[in-house]
Amino acid sequence: MDTQQNLLNKTEITSTFWKRYRDLMANDSIPFQWDMINDNNDVEVTNDPFAAGGAADKSHAIANLKIAAGQMKGDFFGMDFQDTDVYKWLESAAYVLNYAPSAKLREQADSVVDLIADAQEDDGYLSTMFQIDMPERKFKRLQQSHELYSMGHYIEAGVAYYTVTHNEKALTIAKKMADCIDNHFGTEAGKIPGIPGHPEIELALARLYEVTHEQKYLDLATYFIKQRGKDPEFFNKQNKADGIDRDFFPGLGTIGNRYYFSDKPVTEQTDAHGHAVRVLYFCTGLAHVARLTNDQKLMDAANRLWKDIVKKQLYITGNVGQTTTGEAFTYDYDLPNDTDYGETCASVAMVFFAKQMLTTRMNGQYGDIIEKELFNGALSGIALDGKHHFYVNPLEADPKASHGNPGKNHINTRRSSWFACACCPSNITCLLASVDKYLYQETDDTILSDQFIANDTTFKNGVEIKLDSNYPWSGDLEYTITNPNNAKFNFGVRIPSWTLNAYEVTVNGKKVNPQLTDQILYLSIDEPTTTISVHFNMATHLVRTSTRVKDNIGKVAVQRGPVVYCAEEADNQSPLWLYELNKKPAFKYNYDQNLLDGVGTLETDDVQRLNENSASDDLYSFDEEPTAQQSHLTLIPYYAWANRDEGQMTVWLHQA
Amino acid sequence: MDTQQNLLNKTEITSTFWKRYRDLMANDSIPFQWDMINDNNDVEVTNDPFAAGGAADKSHAIANLKIAAGQMKGDFFGMDFQDTDVYKWLESAAYVLNYAPSAKLREQADSVVDLIADAQEDDGYLSTMFQIDMPERKFKRLQQSHELYSMGHYIEAGVAYYTVTHNEKALTIAKKMADCIDNHFGTEAGKIPGIPGHPEIELALARLYEVTHEQKYLDLATYFIKQRGKDPEFFNKQNKADGIDRDFFPGLGTIGNRYYFSDKPVTEQTDAHGHAVRVLYFCTGLAHVARLTNDQKLMDAANRLWKDIVKKQLYITGNVGQTTTGEAFTYDYDLPNDTDYGETCASVAMVFFAKQMLTTRMNGQYGDIIEKELFNGALSGIALDGKHHFYVNPLEADPKASHGNPGKNHINTRRSSWFACACCPSNITCLLASVDKYLYQETDDTILSDQFIANDTTFKNGVEIKLDSNYPWSGDLEYTITNPNNAKFNFGVRIPSWTLNAYEVTVNGKKVNPQLTDQILYLSIDEPTTTISVHFNMATHLVRTSTRVKDNIGKVAVQRGPVVYCAEEADNQSPLWLYELNKKPAFKYNYDQNLLDGVGTLETDDVQRLNENSASDDLYSFDEEPTAQQSHLTLIPYYAWANRDEGQMTVWLHQA
Repeated sequence: MDTQQNLLNKTEITSTFWKRYRDLMANDSIPFQWDMINDNNDVEVTNDPFAAGGAADKSHAIANLKIAAGQMKGDFFGMDFQDTDVYKWLESAAYVLNYAPSAKLREQADSVVDLIADAQEDDGYLSTMFQIDMPERKFKRLQQSHELYSMGHYIEAGVAYYTVTHNEKALTIAKKMADCIDNHFGTEAGKIPGIPGHPEIELALARLYEVTHEQKYLDLATYFIKQRGKDPEFFNKQNKADGIDRDFFPGLGTIGNRYYFSDKPVTEQTDAHGHAVRVLYFCTGLAHVARLTNDQKLMDAANRLWKDIVKKQLYITGNVGQTTTGEAFTYDYDLPNDTDYGETCASVAMVFFAKQMLTTRMNGQYGDIIEKELFNGALSGIALDGKHHFYVNPLEADPKASHGNPGKNHINTRRSSWFACACCPSNITCLLASVDKYLYQETDDTILSDQFIANDTTFKNGVEIKLDSNYPWSGDLEYTITNPNNAKFNFGVRIPSWTLNAYEVTVNGKKVNPQLTDQILYLSIDEPTTTISVHFNMATHLVRTSTRVKDNIGKVAVQRGPVVYCAEEADNQSPLWLYELNKKPAFKYNYDQNLLDGVGTLETDDVQRLNENSASDDLYSFDEEPTAQQSHLTLIPYYAWANRDEGQMTVWLHQA
Repeated sequence: MDTQQNLLNKTEITSTFWKRYRDLMANDSIPFQWDMINDNNDVEVTNDPFAAGGAADKSHAIANLKIAAGQMKGDFFGMDFQDTDVYKWLESAAYVLNYAPSAKLREQADSVVDLIADAQEDDGYLSTMFQIDMPERKFKRLQQSHELYSMGHYIEAGVAYYTVTHNEKALTIAKKMADCIDNHFGTEAGKIPGIPGHPEIELALARLYEVTHEQKYLDLATYFIKQRGKDPEFFNKQNKADGIDRDFFPGLGTIGNRYYFSDKPVTEQTDAHGHAVRVLYFCTGLAHVARLTNDQKLMDAANRLWKDIVKKQLYITGNVGQTTTGEAFTYDYDLPNDTDYGETCASVAMVFFAKQMLTTRMNGQYGDIIEKELFNGALSGIALDGKHHFYVNPLEADPKASHGNPGKNHINTRRSSWFACACCPSNITCLLASVDKYLYQETDDTILSDQFIANDTTFKNGVEIKLDSNYPWSGDLEYTITNPNNAKFNFGVRIPSWTLNAYEVTVNGKKVNPQLTDQILYLSIDEPTTTISVHFNMATHLVRTSTRVKDNIGKVAVQRGPVVYCAEEADNQSPLWLYELNKKPAFKYNYDQNLLDGVGTLETDDVQRLNENSASDDLYSFDEEPTAQQSHLTLIPYYAWANRDEGQMTVWLHQA
C-alpha cells in the first residue's frame, strides 16, 4: 500500500480523546492558522519573548505569495521557507476536509491553490524569497536556500489536497514543481549535481510518485537519496561560488557536512547526527524510496538509522534532538533532560519515518513509536486550545532556569501562538488532522490494527472494522469486524511493548493465545462477523533508562498505557526535585473529566519529600544526611503540561 | 594594613606542596609566558581546538607594545586587552623576584618596564589597540574597549614591581596612567561621566593609593565604584554615539546592563549577576574602597554580594560563573556541574575579594574561601607542569560530551598552553607567585594565621613565626613564635569550617580551649618564645549541597582537609556515573609521592557499581530494578585532574 492509502478508506474516528483533537483542528487550529498566514489583525497572539523558533506576531506568508504572483506590491518578509507555512496549512486543510467537510474551508483552500498557481513561475519554480529578492540566485545556494524544502512541502500538500478533493490544479502545481526540479538536478551534463540543505523533497517526490505513478518522480527522489554525501564538498563549493552572505544558523558555518547529514553517502551512515528534522525527513524519504525501488542497501541504511535513534537517542516521550545548537542530534546515549530540544517537528517526523518503516515491514516496534509520539512527544507540541505551540519539548522545565541560565533559555514554559520560524504549528496540525492514516496498515492479505484509537472504518474490500475503546485511558479494545463478502484475511493487532507480557485476547468470546510475530498478534478472519476483545494490562510502570545514559541514574519515569506522565508544579510543591519515589510506589489512577479537558491522573503517597534547606543555611554541609518527610505526588500526562499556571515540570523523578 | 603589606614581610615558604609550585612559577611558568608574549618560536604550544578562551599559538603582546612605541612596524593583533598579558606577566615576575631573585628575570622585567614607558603616550594613555588602530576612538566605547581594564592591570603590575624592586619608572608609568584617567573621567563638566565595561581600574587605583597615598587616586577609585549603575543608559548612549562595530560578545548585545553589572548603583545591588570576573574585580575594588573611605553603605553592598556568592552561587571547589554564555553568573542555587564555566580568573578574583573582606574584618569565612581556591578551584587552572591552563574548570567532564554536545564544548578535558583570550594563565601564576600575601592578616595588635602553608616569616615588629606542617595532607600545625622584644599581641588561628567541631590546640605543651570569635581562635602572646600546636581532624567528609540546588540531589562530594576530591577515569572504570557510594563509606587515605607530583588519594570499597547495559538492550525498561556489584573507587584531589590520560572526571558522586 502507499502512504496515502488510508485517506481513501472511509474512517470515522469515534475516540473521545481524538475526536476532541480532530474537532479542535477543524474549529480552532486551522482557522487560527488561516488568520495567522493572512495576517488578520483580529487574531490574538501571545508569545514567549525568548521562544525557541523566535517570537513573531505576523506571518506575511500569504502576502509573499501575492507579491510573487504580482497581486500586490511589497517586500518579502520572513524565513527562506516562509511559503511552507501556507503549504502545510493547505495540507492540514486537506486532512480536515476529509473528515469535516466545510464549504468555507474548501473555498479558502481552493483560493490558496489558485494563489500558489499564480505565484508559480512558468517553469514550475516557486520560492517567493528568491523570486522577490534574488531571482538570479535560484538553486545557487542550496545549503541554506530551502528552495527544494519549500517545493517539497508544497508537493506534499498538493498530493494530499488532490487526493481528498480531486482538485487537479493542486496536483498540476506539484507536478510542475517536480518537473522544474527534474530539469535542474541530476548528474547529467548541464544539471546541478546537488542536494538540498534541508531534506524534504525526497519524501515529497516519493508521495507524488505514488499518486501519479510517473517513474521520473521516483527516479528523482532516488537521485536525491543517493546523491547526498557523494560529494561532501558540494555545499562548500556552491557557497564559495555564490559568495553567500546569509547563514541560516550563524556561527555554525564551521560545523560542516556532518551537520547537514551530507558527510558521506547514506549507505555508509551509521548514526543520526546533525539537524534532527533534516535527518528524519531524509530517513522518511530513504525508507520510502528503498521500498519503492526494492533497494536492500538503502533499506539497510534506514534500519541502521532507525535502530540508532530508537535505541540510543530517543527521549522516553519520543522527543528527539538533544541540543538547541542547530536543533540537532548529539551522540549516542546523550539524553540531558533540562537542555534538550525535542523539536515538535522532529517528533512529527519520527511518525513519518516510523510509518514508512511499518509500511515496508509489519513489526510492532514501529507502531510503538508512532503511539509514543501521538500520546506524548508530538502531542505536547500543541496546547489544549489548539492555538498555542511548543517548538521545544523538554523533559524537565523550570521557569527560573529558562529565564536565568542562558543554556536553558530555549526551554520555554509557555506555548507560543506563533514563531518567526513557524514550522512546528502546521506540522503538528497536519499530523493530528491525518491521524486516521496511522490506524491501520494493510497488505493484500492483512489488515494490521496499529493504533488503538476508537474508530469505524470501511475498507475497499468491503470489510468494516469497528474499534470501541476508551484508549489511552483504558486498555480494553473491542473489535467488531463485519466481513459481508466472507473475505479471507489476517487481522493483526500490535501488542505494545509496555504490555508485551500482560495482555489477553478473546475471539468471539473464546480466549486465544496465539504466538506473536514481530510483536504482532495475527488472527485469521473469514467469518461474516468476528468480535475480538483485547485487554492490555494498564498497570502503572516505573520506567528506567539504560545505564549507558548519564542523566537518569537514580531516576524513574512513570508510564501508564502509552502515556508518559510528569509532575507539574500546578499539582505539587516546588521545587519538584525534592520528591523521591519509594522503591515500589503504588499509584492511584483517576480519570478527571474536568481537568485538562479530561485526563487520567496518577497519585501516590509512596513518596518522600526532602526538606528544603533554609536560605540562611550554608550551601555545603559536612556529613549531614538530608531529612525528608512522607509526601504525596500527583502526576499528569506529559502531553498536557503547561496548560495551567506557569511552573516547573519534570518527567524523571528521583527514587529513594 | 594594606594589601601590599605582606610583600614587605620577610617570608620563606617552606611547605613542600607550595615550594614545588613556587619553583614551578620561577623555573617554568614565568619563562614559558615570557616566550609566549614574545612569540619566541621555540616554545611548544598545545591547544584544545575548542578551548574556551579560544585556541592560540601566538600572542603578539610585546609586539603590539613595540609597534605603539615606534620600535617596530606592523599591525595590532589580538584582543582589545592584549597588553594585559604583558602586565600580568610583569606582576607575576615581581612576585617571583621577591622570593627567587634572578638577574636575568630582573633584566627582562626592567626591559618590559622600559618598553611600556616608551609605548605610553605623553598624557599617560596606553592601550595599544586604540593607539595603533583607532586613536580617534579612545574612551569613546567604554563598554567594549577594555582601556581602563588594561591600564588597571598595568597599575597593579607597576605597584607590585615598584614595591618589590623599587623601580621608580614602573610606578611613574602607573601614576601617569591614573592621572590620564583622572583628567578624562568624572562628573565635572568636560569630563566623561563614564565607567569601564570591565571593572579592574577600581581595585588598581585603590592599590596605587596605598603605595602613593595620593588622595586623588582614592577619589577616582571611589568615583568608579559609585558611578557604576548611576546612569544605566551610559553604555548605550556611548555606543550609539560611536557607531560601535565590534562587540566583545557578539550576540549578547541585547543582554543589557545587568550583564555589565551596571543596571543600578552597587548600593542597590543584591546579587552577583553578569560576567563573573567583572563582578568580582568590581567587588574587590568595592570592598577595598569601602574600607579606605570607611563607607558603611559600600561595605554593606560588599557584604551582600559576598553572601550571595558564597551562600548561593559558589561551587564546592570555589569555582564561580555557571554559564559559558558571557562567562557569567546565572541565578541563586543554579549550580549545574556539566555545563558550568568556573573561569580560572573568577576563582583568582574570589581570592582577591576575600582578602579585601578579611582585611576589613577578621573572620574565618574569608580564609575558608581563600583556602578553597588555593587548593581547588583556582589551582585546577594550571597543570602540574606549570605550562598548561584551564580557562574553564568544570565539576564534571566527559570528552565525549565535550566533543559531541555543543552545549558542553566549553568543557575542555585537556589544558591548553595558551588562549586567544589569555587572561587565565597569567592570573593564576600571579596568584601562586604571591601566595605569601595570603598567609597572615595583621592589625596593630593582632597577627592572624589565615592560611596554613608552612612558612618562616619575620614581621616588621621583629616577631618571627615559623609554621611547620605538611598541610594540606596533614592537619598538624606547629607554630614557633619568637618574640625577642616581648611584644604583646594577639595571635589568631583561623579554624576552617570543615573542622569547626574537631580541633585541638596546645600552647607550650598545655591544652587550651578558648572560645572562637568569628571562627578564629585567639591567643595572647607576650613571651619570648611560644610554641603552639594545632590539630585539625583530617577525617574524610561527605559533603552535600543545600537541597535548594537541583543538580546535586542524591549526590555527595568527598573532602579531606581543604582538598575537594574527584573521581577520574585514569583511576576508575568509565562511565563514572555508574558508581554509587554507600551511605557511610570508609575511605583509606594514602599519600603517594610518585603520583601527580605527590598527592593524597582516597580509596574505598564501600561503593557499588551499576551494571552497564548492553548496547543491544532497549533504551527503556519497565519495572526492572538496576543491578549493581560491589566495587572500588579511587579519588584524587580535584586540582590535579587532567594531568594524565584524557577521560571523564566527576566531583559529585551518586550515593546509593
